[in-house]
Amino acid sequence: MAETIGFIGLGLMGRPMAKNLLKKGYPVVVHNRSRPAVDDLVQAGAKDGGSPGGVAEQSDVIISMVPDAPDVRDVLQGSGGVFEKLRRGQIIIDMSTISPTVAKELADEAARRGVMMLDAPVSGGEIGAIQGTLSIMIGGDEQTVETVRPILEAMGNPERIVRIGDAGAGQICKACNQMAIGGALIAVAEAYALAKKAGVDFTKVREALMGGFAASRVLEVHGQRMIEGNWKPGFKAKLYAKDYRIVTSAGAAYDSPMPASALVAQFVNAMLAEGLGEGDYSALAKVIFRLGGVE
Amino acid sequence: MAETIGFIGLGLMGRPMAKNLLKKGYPVVVHNRSRPAVDDLVQAGAKDGGSPGGVAEQSDVIISMVPDAPDVRDVLQGSGGVFEKLRRGQIIIDMSTISPTVAKELADEAARRGVMMLDAPVSGGEIGAIQGTLSIMIGGDEQTVETVRPILEAMGNPERIVRIGDAGAGQICKACNQMAIGGALIAVAEAYALAKKAGVDFTKVREALMGGFAASRVLEVHGQRMIEGNWKPGFKAKLYAKDYRIVTSAGAAYDSPMPASALVAQFVNAMLAEGLGEGDYSALAKVIFRLGGVE
Repeated sequence: MAETIGFIGLGLMGRPMAKNLLKKGYPVVVHNRSRPAVDDLVQAGAKDGGSPGGVAEQSDVIISMVPDAPDVRDVLQGSGGVFEKLRRGQIIIDMSTISPTVAKELADEAARRGVMMLDAPVSGGEIGAIQGTLSIMIGGDEQTVETVRPILEAMGNPERIVRIGDAGAGQICKACNQMAIGGALIAVAEAYALAKKAGVDFTKVREALMGGFAASRVLEVHGQRMIEGNWKPGFKAKLYAKDYRIVTSAGAAYDSPMPASALVAQFVNAMLAEGLGEGDYSALAKVIFRLGGVE
Repeated sequence: MAETIGFIGLGLMGRPMAKNLLKKGYPVVVHNRSRPAVDDLVQAGAKDGGSPGGVAEQSDVIISMVPDAPDVRDVLQGSGGVFEKLRRGQIIIDMSTISPTVAKELADEAARRGVMMLDAPVSGGEIGAIQGTLSIMIGGDEQTVETVRPILEAMGNPERIVRIGDAGAGQICKACNQMAIGGALIAVAEAYALAKKAGVDFTKVREALMGGFAASRVLEVHGQRMIEGNWKPGFKAKLYAKDYRIVTSAGAAYDSPMPASALVAQFVNAMLAEGLGEGDYSALAKVIFRLGGVE
């Protein structure tokens, strides 16, 4: 008999992820702050847990997928939360993107209650969540990762479900992911602006660069977005901004200087200041374009 | 009968490029500031032109491959240079990486003498030059590009020989190439440092990131260099520093602000200040590592 899975947080990402678990035949007990998502999942075959604690009572494995660290704390440590109802031997998987230091602290607290907790943030966006092809970066106990691997494979690409290291390592990896994307993105945006100002067709530049050392997924996908002026999300700028706050605070927490990422973070802030928070995060390029008077 | 090709500048890149022309059966007349490279090419079947002007006298198409704009000026505009001996209908291809504005100025001067000049900088490094698989980014007259395409195909990958636009566009594209690489490189270096300081194995991080949106050739190749601590060139840091001076001066010439690339340029300077100029340019990462006290 498959484990019963508790799923807390039925947003853009969580809702399709929970549905993919149902599709694989797992019994799923859900909770969400607002009601319509719960009704939707109940319609699809899930059970309403009533509260995070209620979900914990009825589940073997508890997954949380919420916006940020305070939300994870609320779900786990809050009144009526998961920790109040925790039983030895349960497993918690937090798939939210949060601070690595908070992830470690919560895993320690869960361990004191006899429960293994993994941090398992994802990348791949809403499309990856719907298609069940997410990349999942995991921090935590190796044996526990193997235990829950079939569950993760219901939501992610089996080849891209990687245990990175101990508790917090999944969140460090996600921070690295956002940093690598941000550095590539701002540089491609600046290159686009330079080409435009020099009267050069960036379509040709992108084509030439994709064959060589400058090739990247960012150049491929966001380079094309820049050409088309397409800023439809995708992954929302306001969530990327939250992720960059995690990046810079992780830098501070681990005494790790990051001059370029700190600069990117300023332009991510500028993107929100320009009212672009609900658009795709690649609109970071728009901030660079406006600086240069490039439409 | 194939056109006779003049080749001026037989350095790390020029020497194997000229040899590839010989291998394809082109008569080649060469010049180089220092003697041994000329002797080597003569041994391989080339003719010694004696001077840039001498090369121009005996060639239909004149290729220059020298370190920087002052060298190109010297070869073309200097005493005993190419421009002194130019005949209407010849073609000049400058494959050096130089300032886009200088490239345009020289193309204009050549045009006044009835000669088409292309800017055609390359990427792919010494290995690409030896294997004849360079990427070639071309600015200049479309018909002229088609005329010399077979010559360029002797040195580069046919699929990566791209006309970007009018005179100077090849150099703009090369600047964009270096910018895109630089932004990706510094961000990956910062991610590596963060992972290391947080006690996380970057090998795993790189593996996870390569499957997703952060995937890039820089992460693939230089991410691996960081893991191995391998800074053997490759492409020398001091040449990359020259390219970044072109990037930042192009930004100034075209009123194109580039906050991230300007920051990368500072760390490229720091790389030279640290005495890393003869190593691979990916040692930009070492500067970031030292900032963070990462080995």
